[in-house]
Amino acid sequence: MNNPRKIIIDTDPGQDDAVAILLALGSPELEVLGITAVAGNVPLALTQKNCRIICELAGRPDIPVYSGAIRPLVRELVTAENVHGKTGLNGPELSDPTMPLQAQYAVDFIVETFMSEPENTVTLCVLGPLTNIALAMIREPKIIPRIAEIVLMGGGCFEGGNVTPAAEFNIYVDPHAAKTVFNAGVPITMFPLDVTHKALTTRKRVEEFRSMGTNVGIVTAELLDFFERFDEEKYGTDGGPLHDPNVIAWLLKPELYTGRHINVEIETASELTMGMTVADWWGVTDRPKNAFFVRDLDAEGFYNLLVERIGALCP
Amino acid sequence: MNNPRKIIIDTDPGQDDAVAILLALGSPELEVLGITAVAGNVPLALTQKNCRIICELAGRPDIPVYSGAIRPLVRELVTAENVHGKTGLNGPELSDPTMPLQAQYAVDFIVETFMSEPENTVTLCVLGPLTNIALAMIREPKIIPRIAEIVLMGGGCFEGGNVTPAAEFNIYVDPHAAKTVFNAGVPITMFPLDVTHKALTTRKRVEEFRSMGTNVGIVTAELLDFFERFDEEKYGTDGGPLHDPNVIAWLLKPELYTGRHINVEIETASELTMGMTVADWWGVTDRPKNAFFVRDLDAEGFYNLLVERIGALCP
Amino acid sequence: MNNPRKIIIDTDPGQDDAVAILLALGSPELEVLGITAVAGNVPLALTQKNCRIICELAGRPDIPVYSGAIRPLVRELVTAENVHGKTGLNGPELSDPTMPLQAQYAVDFIVETFMSEPENTVTLCVLGPLTNIALAMIREPKIIPRIAEIVLMGGGCFEGGNVTPAAEFNIYVDPHAAKTVFNAGVPITMFPLDVTHKALTTRKRVEEFRSMGTNVGIVTAELLDFFERFDEEKYGTDGGPLHDPNVIAWLLKPELYTGRHINVEIETASELTMGMTVADWWGVTDRPKNAFFVRDLDAEGFYNLLVERIGALCP
Amino acid sequence: MNNPRKIIIDTDPGQDDAVAILLALGSPELEVLGITAVAGNVPLALTQKNCRIICELAGRPDIPVYSGAIRPLVRELVTAENVHGKTGLNGPELSDPTMPLQAQYAVDFIVETFMSEPENTVTLCVLGPLTNIALAMIREPKIIPRIAEIVLMGGGCFEGGNVTPAAEFNIYVDPHAAKTVFNAGVPITMFPLDVTHKALTTRKRVEEFRSMGTNVGIVTAELLDFFERFDEEKYGTDGGPLHDPNVIAWLLKPELYTGRHINVEIETASELTMGMTVADWWGVTDRPKNAFFVRDLDAEGFYNLLVERIGALCP
Repeated sequence: MNNPRKIIIDTDPGQDDAVAILLALGSPELEVLGITAVAGNVPLALTQKNCRIICELAGRPDIPVYSGAIRPLVRELVTAENVHGKTGLNGPELSDPTMPLQAQYAVDFIVETFMSEPENTVTLCVLGPLTNIALAMIREPKIIPRIAEIVLMGGGCFEGGNVTPAAEFNIYVDPHAAKTVFNAGVPITMFPLDVTHKALTTRKRVEEFRSMGTNVGIVTAELLDFFERFDEEKYGTDGGPLHDPNVIAWLLKPELYTGRHINVEIETASELTMGMTVADWWGVTDRPKNAFFVRDLDAEGFYNLLVERIGALCP
Repeated sequence: MNNPRKIIIDTDPGQDDAVAILLALGSPELEVLGITAVAGNVPLALTQKNCRIICELAGRPDIPVYSGAIRPLVRELVTAENVHGKTGLNGPELSDPTMPLQAQYAVDFIVETFMSEPENTVTLCVLGPLTNIALAMIREPKIIPRIAEIVLMGGGCFEGGNVTPAAEFNIYVDPHAAKTVFNAGVPITMFPLDVTHKALTTRKRVEEFRSMGTNVGIVTAELLDFFERFDEEKYGTDGGPLHDPNVIAWLLKPELYTGRHINVEIETASELTMGMTVADWWGVTDRPKNAFFVRDLDAEGFYNLLVERIGALCP
Repeated sequence: MNNPRKIIIDTDPGQDDAVAILLALGSPELEVLGITAVAGNVPLALTQKNCRIICELAGRPDIPVYSGAIRPLVRELVTAENVHGKTGLNGPELSDPTMPLQAQYAVDFIVETFMSEPENTVTLCVLGPLTNIALAMIREPKIIPRIAEIVLMGGGCFEGGNVTPAAEFNIYVDPHAAKTVFNAGVPITMFPLDVTHKALTTRKRVEEFRSMGTNVGIVTAELLDFFERFDEEKYGTDGGPLHDPNVIAWLLKPELYTGRHINVEIETASELTMGMTVADWWGVTDRPKNAFFVRDLDAEGFYNLLVERIGALCP
Repeated sequence: MNNPRKIIIDTDPGQDDAVAILLALGSPELEVLGITAVAGNVPLALTQKNCRIICELAGRPDIPVYSGAIRPLVRELVTAENVHGKTGLNGPELSDPTMPLQAQYAVDFIVETFMSEPENTVTLCVLGPLTNIALAMIREPKIIPRIAEIVLMGGGCFEGGNVTPAAEFNIYVDPHAAKTVFNAGVPITMFPLDVTHKALTTRKRVEEFRSMGTNVGIVTAELLDFFERFDEEKYGTDGGPLHDPNVIAWLLKPELYTGRHINVEIETASELTMGMTVADWWGVTDRPKNAFFVRDLDAEGFYNLLVERIGALCP
């Protein structure tokens, strides 16, 4: 087997972030150099704690977890307790973590990692607002050509937004950070609502996790039970969209996904469309292509992968 | 049979506008009080001429045709010869019209009609940029509560835009007029790209017009042949979307369509999203509902209606 | 003496508009082809009436007065009764006019005049929001190269705004119309707050009008008494700025004024700066020069001219 | 004498920044805890070096100098070599510094200082773009209520802009940082172009520095000679505006200045007015007062203070 691919997971758990972390930790192809928390779905004090809860749940208290940006660059923090519950991981009973939070600031960890690791060997997996990533690029622009790739969950085109009619939550929370990142020139692969809305947590799929019998499997099922509740009611579907784990699945099985290399601009001028990812899917402008926009997936293959890898986590 | 429903068709033909006009003229349920031309797909000198060409094609040189706004309120005119050809009606051979253009300004005709006809008895069918309608509302705000309904083709939500990544052509050409109209408080039914992209001019459907054997049928087929060419290539579908005739079909058979009563705001602040119809389909804001947004149709039923009514036109 | 210069006065009286009209009617160098009213300082029903009141006051019931736009192109009408009082001409006792309002729409009168008069022989003097002028340009772009000059009161640069921190009232009320006009390519001379704030209605100057002994003189003094009240309190000056008469004085004695030919853009994107005239006085951009921006005046000369001409009005 | 007032100087020298630093270092009432460099007038590599050059010139190699943000939060860095020359300190011959740059990131130094010093005892003097300050607030919002005051040079109202018609350079370079800072709720005193344009480096004033006979005096004169060159030509005045030293002079002799406590908003929506400080001097809005806007100064008193303190620097 090849050397595992080195990644940093930047995240604001969030039930779907949690499942993404579990997927990464259950996959030997990936080496998680660190997990960096950011304010987003819930405030930072909870997201950094949730990162540690999930590492412990996966039996990996050795993963270094860092605390990053407590607020967006310009706008006030918007959170989504209506979706994720008060803790961000509502659903299962989860104990407080005993593993420590790293003392280093997440942004400094990101900078240091990219400056010390060989060029183009570390991938950034971003599951929340892009604040930490933008701050790292502002702190040290020299990291920009050293980032192998940014794979992120965020934005939308043909699905519209979820937090406003035009904007998806992760981008909306810190559109200025998103603009800084999308303008940086790093290869970006983005998983917008267009694809994540096709990865529904159907009853049958959730039960597969529960029937694993492991603690991890049961907690996963309970996280999904809670998480889908909001979107099921909103969209009237069997299950809700599962967003963040697609970022990790892409690293493992890119053949599950199809998309197009296009131009994506971040709207920061108008309040009405603030945080929209203006995606030129049809190529009607001559703006440069700066992102691979994933639009379709093999949902069965995706869930099979999830079940396989989360099932492989021992605890 | 009931009295026919009185309508004014405001339009910038355009092959699909032409088919919409034919549908209206072939339908005894509708009384076309007048056709008002506006600059849009092609310049005004062509759209007003094209209106008359179509009336004569339908054997209805008695329909009064008026010339309206030669340019948008604020922005420079953008046209779409890449889609419609140089004349706007490229495709068939069409003779110059002999019926006269009315001397009255289209905007004045609209105002006069709404002030003289009984309240809520006349419907505005708008197939192009909303310049004439906005100008009529600015000219005489008293018409606003007298308009029975505005039924328009324009905008998009889950289909994105066609002229920019965010905006549909009709709204993009005059977003300020659109804002004036959407803010006016008149009942609006809108046919965005979301629904018109489901009304494809498949080969089979186009042949039905050709096989009518009438001149009108053959011209319709040739208009569609030309019109679909652009979008077929762009979208890779069998046939292209047929936009404007849905506005008329809705008046005849609303049961062909489904939609939702929602808030729609017009973006005029940001160049990036200029002319976007920000449609709150999921009700994530508390902005007031101001438009019925049509999203689905019975495409077979729609084409059957078209064939039936265009087939009924004698010439 | 030369033939008088032909002008149309477009206005929303307003005490200072009234004095501007009196100045024009008292000046044999000018031939007032018509006065066109627009909604602005007060609603249209009052501004068109006020135009007629002033014509009668000046003994000129023969001047045709037209009623124009009742609202701005896109935004809702904002008025300024806090400055001008409820009628727009608060201050003196004024009788209702007996002269008729013309039946023709002001916008049509403007278009017709420019299309029938020889090219470049008629000057537009604009004392209110630019709605009528924009509507005329939209109605018939062929008038654009036929307009000798547009001389207008509006905007500001080094004086900031008066209705918002960034915007002057006339431009703020209809920024979209202003944008249409400033983009049209017509020679524009603008009298912004920068110059009008140097034309103060000091006590001594107002008394000169009162001491004329004529009805016109006394009414002028009473108009100014009321008008300055608001700005005196705001700015703590002896008298308030006198805005609109500068437009007319410029036609009579341009040597009273100095300014610079610069680029002026109209802000319509941001609510915060909506309606601002972004004036490149120092030439820091390479945007094309589109307006003569008047910044200084000989205030004594200006008031002497006013006294001379208003004193010459018989009634 | 009281304990000296503790300050951090955040700066992008720049000749006028240099004079401000000299003024601070020559004033026993102030204790300079550190100087933090930011990209602005010239790139960061030069501004941090220039800070050290000036400290050494003043005989104060003990002052810790920190390097901060190399770029703005969102926009690309804009510099002003046309004003300041290629090095930022063009004019005199200046040797490379031998004192070290601190290893700590300027933003971390700012955070650490405010968290360790007693609340409300340290003042931030900001002479460049607000990037470092915004980054510190994003890094640790707990510093916000601990900052005694932010005194900054930036913005303008009745003077317009200098880099665009609407924006002053410091705010324009990083308008997003400025927005973050102005929204934070810290007491702000701002020295906009309105006041700095009244502090002209007349020939006579510059000669007073040269005639001190000290190296510092001669270098100051040569810095001002170069600096004024650009604005003298632009504005046609005797000497150019001296901006940044006012920030320091205010701490020493606030009685030299007058201003008003008002609302100031930062424009970030529109490209046309990007970075404008929309200052509600006349109180026409009900937005909360968030800044003391200094508009006038005793220029003679200001230059006397400069001469006295810079004259007191030994070298």
